[in-house]
Formats: sequence, structure tokens, C-alpha cells
Amino acid sequence: MTQLEAARQGLQTPEMAEVARREGLRVEQIQEGLAQGVLVLPANALKKKARPVGIGRGLTIKVNANIGTSSDHIDLEEELTKLQICVEAGADTVMDLSTGGDLPEILRTILSRSPLPVGTVPIYQAAVETIREQGGLVHLTADKLFEVIEQQAREGVDFITVHCGVTLSSLERLKRQGRITDIVSRGGAFLATWMVYHGQENPLFEQYDRLLELARRYDLTLSLGDGLRPGCLADATDRAQVQELIHLGELRTAALEAGVQVMIEGPGHVPLNQIVTNIQLQKRLCEEAPFYVLGPLVTDIAAGYDHIACAIGGALAGMAGADFLCYVTPAEHLKLPTPEDVREGIIAARIAAHAADLARGNAQAWERDRAMALARKELNWEKQISLCLDPEKARKVRSESPPQESEVCTMCGEFCAIKLVRDFLKKA
Amino acid sequence: MTQLEAARQGLQTPEMAEVARREGLRVEQIQEGLAQGVLVLPANALKKKARPVGIGRGLTIKVNANIGTSSDHIDLEEELTKLQICVEAGADTVMDLSTGGDLPEILRTILSRSPLPVGTVPIYQAAVETIREQGGLVHLTADKLFEVIEQQAREGVDFITVHCGVTLSSLERLKRQGRITDIVSRGGAFLATWMVYHGQENPLFEQYDRLLELARRYDLTLSLGDGLRPGCLADATDRAQVQELIHLGELRTAALEAGVQVMIEGPGHVPLNQIVTNIQLQKRLCEEAPFYVLGPLVTDIAAGYDHIACAIGGALAGMAGADFLCYVTPAEHLKLPTPEDVREGIIAARIAAHAADLARGNAQAWERDRAMALARKELNWEKQISLCLDPEKARKVRSESPPQESEVCTMCGEFCAIKLVRDFLKKA
Repeated sequence: MTQLEAARQGLQTPEMAEVARREGLRVEQIQEGLAQGVLVLPANALKKKARPVGIGRGLTIKVNANIGTSSDHIDLEEELTKLQICVEAGADTVMDLSTGGDLPEILRTILSRSPLPVGTVPIYQAAVETIREQGGLVHLTADKLFEVIEQQAREGVDFITVHCGVTLSSLERLKRQGRITDIVSRGGAFLATWMVYHGQENPLFEQYDRLLELARRYDLTLSLGDGLRPGCLADATDRAQVQELIHLGELRTAALEAGVQVMIEGPGHVPLNQIVTNIQLQKRLCEEAPFYVLGPLVTDIAAGYDHIACAIGGALAGMAGADFLCYVTPAEHLKLPTPEDVREGIIAARIAAHAADLARGNAQAWERDRAMALARKELNWEKQISLCLDPEKARKVRSESPPQESEVCTMCGEFCAIKLVRDFLKKA
Repeated sequence: MTQLEAARQGLQTPEMAEVARREGLRVEQIQEGLAQGVLVLPANALKKKARPVGIGRGLTIKVNANIGTSSDHIDLEEELTKLQICVEAGADTVMDLSTGGDLPEILRTILSRSPLPVGTVPIYQAAVETIREQGGLVHLTADKLFEVIEQQAREGVDFITVHCGVTLSSLERLKRQGRITDIVSRGGAFLATWMVYHGQENPLFEQYDRLLELARRYDLTLSLGDGLRPGCLADATDRAQVQELIHLGELRTAALEAGVQVMIEGPGHVPLNQIVTNIQLQKRLCEEAPFYVLGPLVTDIAAGYDHIACAIGGALAGMAGADFLCYVTPAEHLKLPTPEDVREGIIAARIAAHAADLARGNAQAWERDRAMALARKELNWEKQISLCLDPEKARKVRSESPPQESEVCTMCGEFCAIKLVRDFLKKA
């Protein structure tokens, strides 16, 4: 039984209880949200994770961090260091997006070490192995793709991105649209080139029932991917993107009917003034399904600092209703991220998520900021540091420039406004 | 004659022409905006800057960087390094907020080296010198304050922050409000403690005509400061803050009547869902005056990464109509920033400003992002790097992990989506 099916039958699983505890909610709220399909609880039926995570309506916004090798950079130890940083820096989930090296072995190792739910994009392994073994992507078969999905599910993957909305019909929209960057999703590009070569429909769409049956068996949460997401601001919210989203809305309904948990992925590169529209559109077309956004990046020219462009977009998306933010690191558009890039990316996304949680009135979020304000008022530095999103970094920065009076910091020194006012009120 | 008076008389100054050229606008648009008081052009009448900057309606959003010593950290060479970084990293203006060392000498040196307009907060020098010379802030006099303002104006300062809205009436609102962090503005704290001690009105408010006469003589642009800005999310948009803003609106009208250029400063720490309200309130209460925001920071708990919390707030503020973003560095709330912190802060604020320019439909901004999208499509790395906000950083990041094929990057390696689609279309 999937978490969704259990919820519909009025059952409360240990995972629901744990999510409720961590969110400060009643377990009934989690169960009802699951039953309605407005929240998901990605938890492979075979291998439960130490920290189950709920994503969706009424919950705090969650952050995903992508790790994994590429064909140009294969170092399992480094990826395990990144995994460790994901846990330390407060990511809620990780995705293994490896495309270089022994892919099943890398995934198995990450799954065995991760206390967090793990996601994958199975088309990567299917495509890479087909190219290696048969010399070209065109030799990919539907059976190969479904075999990889089942293999990864058996290993314990909790959620998978499947680009089921890259259909012949949405590719036709793409062609007529005349985009600048066409397709920037790797999974979308694998599928689209295969489809155009063979003149055949996407197997993940055509054999969607087969996918649902697999997903149901392992309680694999489907993350319906946006293979046609815009790769630049000029392509945002175009007919191809919206066509795909319409497909995803329909596919989501079918997943719920089959007892399969499902969320929807969204853009991408989106100008700030189109973000609210994108969220409203997704919430309407996909009937309040949990929304997992990849950014959005609010400019194309911030390479080296794309984690900041992403934090801006993610915060506004979160305020408007997005539920799950995929981080972007400072290395985006330039190279595979280092462990340090991973940390920077996670913290930036967590700031965005927290800012949006505050804007949505989340009580836990407000409690923490209020405690920080009180610690500042009291010039209580230990407490301030412990309340920071990254206490280690805050402690390090402060210690690099120790103030003469321990009550203040070197920014304002003896002319600290809080101290001035406090000392004055004491005397008055 | 001030730029405002010239504009009203139908004159077009060389500064107006230069601003128009850089914004891609007609000089008449600059002149009309100045005449209406919806934009300012801070340019000291005695010492014009190499790069005049326009701030306000219809223009790109500008970024200010604060530099300057504190009582705990006095190193003029380091501040000059920061100034150099301000120029290189693309700040539009700098403010010298020094409170440690020989303040007139530091300011003189910064003014002589800066091609950018320079701002100050004259109450800092007035208060610090009074404390040093007479042993306490309570000995500050109105004459001392006005002497410092005139001295700085003679040296060539282009704009000054004056906290004229910290009045006995707004302090009464503050007292009745019952805030957590009371006053976090240094200038506001100096004035408020002096006012409470003496039971007297703020000299910058009481002798506002004297201030206007000085400002008019040197064409000193007034930045009406928000001494009562919120220092934490829980204090945002409260009665004290709004009371001060009402005062600032009235003072702005009087400044325009006296031929003095004027802009308004705004918060501070503001939850994401109150930012649009804050901008609309300022634009209405201050009749479309240029709005200079200090952040806003969208959470209290991001110390070590406050440049990111500020970029989120600044971008949304800019989209809603803010004209001028004061940067925040990663050192905020922890220490005086280093030169590297200054660079990080400026780039983060520029990303926010640019994202908001795009959202507001600025043609120059869209042209640059479009060029980047085309360079990405062409896999033209030299062009991509040259179009980045920080080309040096982008080049460095890419070179740290050189790809095997020069056309891609190590993020996706040979499975680059853009390359996959392009190669496929070539073959097809």
C-alpha cells in the first residue's frame, strides 16, 4: 500500500506521524493532505528513510540538492562528501543525477549513506548505458527504460523525475513556437531526440499505465518533469511550456486514481514578473498538486552567482505557493559543483524557503526570527549565532574581526545603535 | 542653480545629457523627471563627478555600496581598496559611513578618488567629534551638526542622509508601539537619545529651512533617512515606521518647493509579503519620490549570508517600484565588511536590480539577457563569459574544471542538452 492509499483508507503510517511531529501539525492534517493529493511523502516501500519528508500544502517549503557525477568528472568520494554536506547544511532531499562512472554502484552507495529521501532521473542511466553499450541513444528501448526504473526502485529510490509531458504534441508546440534555447533539460533532450528520430511517442507517456503500476508497487513518488522548461527568460511561459504543463495536469489525475503519489516540476528561467503567474497556472492546471520548482532563475546573466538569482526566484515562487525548491549552486552553467558550491547552494535555497515560509505565516518560522530579534536586542551573541541558518559560518565571520567590546561587532563598534539606545535608557 | 531648478527652467545640463545617454533615453525625459521630483541626479555643485547617476522613475535601478571605518577597525588603505572594488564591481554610488579615525581626512581622500557620486551621513561625524571632544553625545549642538553638513558639502559630497523624520511625535509613536529592536539606525539612535535627554525637537526637523538653504547652495541631494526603520521582521510596517514616513512625505514637498533634490529612504527588515505594501505606501505618501531601500532583508536569521536575504528583498522591492538599492554584505550583523565582502554585496545587489529591471521591462536589460541566451544556444563560451555580471568570476569558475570537449561544461559533460539537440538537428 502506498502512503496515498493508506491515507485514503484512514490509516496513519509512522512516516505521517513523524512528518506531523516535525512540522508541528496533527497527523490528521498530513493524512488528509496525502489523501487529497496536495502533499506527498516520498518514501520507498522497501527501504524507509531515517527522516521522512512531507512536501506540499500547509507544510514548510522543502529544499532539494542535486549531486552526482558527470561524464567529465567522476569521483565517488567527492559525491559522498557532497552528500554529507547536504545533510549538514540542511537539505531536505537529495537527487543523484550521476551520468558518469558505474551508475548503479554510485546510486547504491548514495542510497546506503543518505538519511534523506533520494530521487533520481532514471532516463539518465537508461540513456548513458544505451549509448555506452550500443553506440547511440537511438537504440534506447521502452523496455530498457522501465527496467532501469524498476532496478532503481528496488534499490530504494524514493522519487523519480519522469518527463512524461514531452509528447509529440508538445514538441509540435515547441517547433511552432520558435524558441531561443529549445530544450535545456537533459532528460527532455534525451527523449525528444529519440522521439524525433523514431517518429514515435514518448514511452513514458504512451506506457504511462506501466509506469504507474511500477510506481505503485514500490510507492515511488512521481515527479512529473518539465522537459520543455525555458532555458532563458525570453522563452519563459511560452506555448510549449504551458502545453507540457497541461499534459502534466492530466497525468497527475491519472496517477492519483492509480494510488500513486505525484508532484509537478516547474521552471527554470523566468522573469520575476511572471513567477506568480507560473505558480497560479500550475496550481490551477494541476489541481493544487505539490509544485517542485527548479529555481526559478530571474536572470540569465548571473553565472558564478546563480544561487542568488535562484534564491530570488525561489522565494517569490514559495510565497506564491511553490512547495519544493531545487537548489542551484554558484557553479551552475559553468561546471559540476564542488562540495563547497553544494553548501552555498543549499544555504541560499534555505534562505529563500524560509523567507517564503515567513511570508506564508508559518508559525515555526516566525518563532525563530522572533527569537533572533530578541537575542539581537539583548546583544546575546551566542544565542544569535546558534539561531543562524549556518551557525558555523556566522561564528567564523565574527571571529575574523573581534570587537574591542564583546557586546558589539566591528561594523559599528562603540556606536552600535542597539547599545546606544539601551545604555541611554538604563541611565534615563 | 540646482539640477532641479535648471530642469524646471527648461535647461539641460551636461549631467542630464550624460545620464540620458547611459540610460538610452532622451535628455528631455531626464529633465522632466527632475522637474517633477520623481528622479534625482546627485551632483555637488562645486565638484562634479566623472559618472553622474540618475535615480528614479523610468531609469534602471541603481546600487549603493557603503564603505568606511568603524571605531573598531580603522584602515584608510583598506577603505580605498573597497572603493576600487565598488568601481570595478559596478556600484553606482558609494557612501562613506566612517566613524573611526580622522573623519574629514578619510572623506576628503574618498572624494578625491571616487569617480562615483559619494554620500555621507553627517550626523556620524558631528556625533563622533562631539563625543571625542566633549565626552558625550548630549553636548552635540545644532550648530555643530550644520557646520559638519556645510563642511562636507564644501568638500564635494553629492548626497546626504538626514534623519529629519525622527521627531518627538514619531518617537512617541515608537514608545507606544512597544517594539522588539527599538532603533537600529545609528543616525536615528544618535538623534533619538539626544532628543530624549534634552526633551527637545530634532534640529534637522526644527531647522529644516536651514538645511534646505544649505542643500540648495551646494545642490546637495537630500536622502531623507528612516531612523525608525524596523530592525527585525516583527517590527516591520508598524505605526512608528509609517509615522516617520508621513513626516518624510511632507518634508519632501517642502524640499521640492525650495529647489532641493530629494529622495526617501526605506526599510530595513521586512517580510516578503509586506514589501509591495511598503513600496506602494512610500510612493503614495511621498508622491512618487525616488525610493532608496536598505535591503529589505526578508529574514532575521541569515547572518553570514545577508547579501542573499537582501537580494531577495531588493528584487521584489525593485519590481514594485523601488529605485535605489543599498547593498548589504555577507558581514552584515557580524563585522565590518572586508573588500571581498564588498564585492559579494555589490554583485548580489546588482543581480536584484537587474532582475527587477527585467521585470519592469527595461529594454537594455532584456537585450543583455537575450544576447546571453543566444550565446548559450551557440555554445559560445567567450561571449557567455563577457556577458556575465562578473566575467572574471565566471571565467575562474569554468577554468577550475575544464571540460574534455571545449563546447560544453563539466556539469553535463558530453550529455549537454543544448549540444544533444543541436547535434541531432544537424544530423536530421
